[in-house]
Amino acid sequence: MEEELKSLLQDIESLKRSPSDAKALDSIDEMQQRVVRIMNLTKSGASRRSKVKDMSAEVVDSNPYSRLMALQRMGIVENYERIREFSVAIVGIGGVGSVAAEMLTRCGIGRLLLYDYDTVELANMNRLFFRPDQVGMTKTDAAVQTLSDINPDVVLESYSLNITTVKGFEIFTESLKAQGSHKSGRSTGVDLVLSCVDNYEARMAVNQACNELGQTWMESGVSEDAVSGHIQLLVPGETACFACAPPLVVASGVDERTLKREGVCAASLPTTMGVVAGLLVQNALKYLLKFGQVSPYLGYNSLKDYFPTMEMRPNPQCSNFACVERQKKYIQTKPARDAAAKAKMEAEASAAKEGPLHVENEWNISVVDDSEMETSNASSASGALPEGLTHELPSADKYPESLVVGEASPLVDDLEDLQRQLDALNAS
Amino acid sequence: MEEELKSLLQDIESLKRSPSDAKALDSIDEMQQRVVRIMNLTKSGASRRSKVKDMSAEVVDSNPYSRLMALQRMGIVENYERIREFSVAIVGIGGVGSVAAEMLTRCGIGRLLLYDYDTVELANMNRLFFRPDQVGMTKTDAAVQTLSDINPDVVLESYSLNITTVKGFEIFTESLKAQGSHKSGRSTGVDLVLSCVDNYEARMAVNQACNELGQTWMESGVSEDAVSGHIQLLVPGETACFACAPPLVVASGVDERTLKREGVCAASLPTTMGVVAGLLVQNALKYLLKFGQVSPYLGYNSLKDYFPTMEMRPNPQCSNFACVERQKKYIQTKPARDAAAKAKMEAEASAAKEGPLHVENEWNISVVDDSEMETSNASSASGALPEGLTHELPSADKYPESLVVGEASPLVDDLEDLQRQLDALNAS
Repeated sequence: MEEELKSLLQDIESLKRSPSDAKALDSIDEMQQRVVRIMNLTKSGASRRSKVKDMSAEVVDSNPYSRLMALQRMGIVENYERIREFSVAIVGIGGVGSVAAEMLTRCGIGRLLLYDYDTVELANMNRLFFRPDQVGMTKTDAAVQTLSDINPDVVLESYSLNITTVKGFEIFTESLKAQGSHKSGRSTGVDLVLSCVDNYEARMAVNQACNELGQTWMESGVSEDAVSGHIQLLVPGETACFACAPPLVVASGVDERTLKREGVCAASLPTTMGVVAGLLVQNALKYLLKFGQVSPYLGYNSLKDYFPTMEMRPNPQCSNFACVERQKKYIQTKPARDAAAKAKMEAEASAAKEGPLHVENEWNISVVDDSEMETSNASSASGALPEGLTHELPSADKYPESLVVGEASPLVDDLEDLQRQLDALNAS
Repeated sequence: MEEELKSLLQDIESLKRSPSDAKALDSIDEMQQRVVRIMNLTKSGASRRSKVKDMSAEVVDSNPYSRLMALQRMGIVENYERIREFSVAIVGIGGVGSVAAEMLTRCGIGRLLLYDYDTVELANMNRLFFRPDQVGMTKTDAAVQTLSDINPDVVLESYSLNITTVKGFEIFTESLKAQGSHKSGRSTGVDLVLSCVDNYEARMAVNQACNELGQTWMESGVSEDAVSGHIQLLVPGETACFACAPPLVVASGVDERTLKREGVCAASLPTTMGVVAGLLVQNALKYLLKFGQVSPYLGYNSLKDYFPTMEMRPNPQCSNFACVERQKKYIQTKPARDAAAKAKMEAEASAAKEGPLHVENEWNISVVDDSEMETSNASSASGALPEGLTHELPSADKYPESLVVGEASPLVDDLEDLQRQLDALNAS
């Protein structure tokens, strides 16, 4: 196309020199043809698909949803089209968040809220999603550009802001509260928040907002050495919040001394980030569309292809006030929940004759027994970890003060002992 | 841009009607400015990054390789830049293969060979990579378009052909044999073949070519119900080939009766395919760059986030003649391999004082003991499977005849018994 445009410019230049020349008419004809060719070139490069009103299961090449609606016919998902009613917020549009956004967009999610304050750099090109021609754009603008081309049916809202600033946090929580056109029985405006940020402060901000709003969210992370990652489900009051227990990461088994040197940029790989994004969105789909089991915590050690899982109960002594309030509310509403669960079970039992092919699991998570939770304490929240899991922060004195219950508390002793055990395990 | 072009066409039209008009010169000036604007618009939308001669570890925003070279400084990879010497062939540029190609391209692989006979359809848009504006292009052309924009340093070769045809198979094997500019001590022209095809015949064709050439390859697959997948390493003569044992898949636990109905298209999800592509390329990187442990077989059950692993030894009674020849050669070369391994261990022991931080594993795989292999037989190749794994083909009478050793052979009995056990397991 560049060549065509250059030639066009030359044509105009010569026309300018002799506008009333005998050859002028011929040259104008030629110019006209050239423009038509350029228009065709442009068109083939930017043809967007039109919006699709209803998701159809029809098996034709032109149907972008046929392979998703097939999930219904195959008995995996009861009602796939419900995906259009859901709103998901993604905080951090980097190596994990951008891929998560693309996956949800291609799945036909109803509404996506995107948050990031960064711009696209060439240094991001070793991860999926962003393209070199988007360098310099904000990550949210570049994401909206790409995602709206991929699927114009998705409602995209982008927020170029830093959620760890006072102003940014305020806009963040307000945007989560704002109800979209579909409400699907939720208290906030979104059904799920996915945290795909790369630092502790931003995770604490997401944690604070979600505890305040009673908003279920999923956390994700990739290690600085690029070879391990994790995802975690957080339901305020029901599971541990991000402040209940020191954050867990999957140990890569690589000598810690080689990591976290001063002034060294973190490594990253499109593979690890793609896997973490895939596991995150797969669990988000299971949660939203009610199929399979949502993992409370899933780690990924890529050097050994090892995937530890565990559950984390909330800490009644959690330093986060909003979390403690959510825990109280969760216990208070236990009788009502039990009654509802009993009624549902009875209704299902009476409908068992023509019962569904696959048993539905209301929230797709294995709920922690309330009586256990009531007796849990700080040390049980930091109890034995599965092999290969370790805490993100290397020693107790580096934990934020609010997390340390008291001087020489059992929590700190347990953690130091645990760290020694894990160090020995990783060294072996 | 479309509007600008339309206006330009109108300008030319009016100029054509009155070429010697007094206003002609003004209008020509305007046209000139318009074309310059169009050129600028085109440029901003298609600015490609220039080629990078040497991979640098410099931590600047403009360096597309800084986050990859950091793997070296962090002690994960000994020499990341070696990636430029490797050639990888990807067969099948669909939901898994296209993402695998993008990951390797962003990692800066030296040369990629892409094989597919299909064209892009809107029905592919529920998986990553292809864009709606590429509908109608061959998948290989569309992939080259996208990948060369992302990373112009990668040498891309595309083959739009069907490897299961006689002619296609011939071009396929010839292209694998052709040496690139970097040889890195390999016998064929590629270091690794990744199979990302979606059918049995194409897998058998890849298996045949790789057995004939002694070419190490990795197989990948996603189930028809979109919720499980697997990857597998195949080293001719050393591990089971694709014909040695009936192909394994990860059971989703979903009732088989709801699957594989006549005339029903397969379901697919960008999540499952993204995870499988990520696990596949991560293992390819571990194999090529010699870090971590390459998984001989890794399954993914997304409903339960369960990842079974296992090893599969070659079957001395394998129906594939080339496989049996490779097995014989592998046994013949055992003394030479043992001697080389011994010499290497001794050299490492003497260098132990200033030894490397992480012990190098020559081929990054846990090699099956040769003495064990020599005594292995058909029934051991189909021995006990880890929980959740099952064979892809539901009952013995559906296996290709060449795989069945004889009437009422132990292999068939074992498999039927196994199938019953797995069915019971999946039903529970």
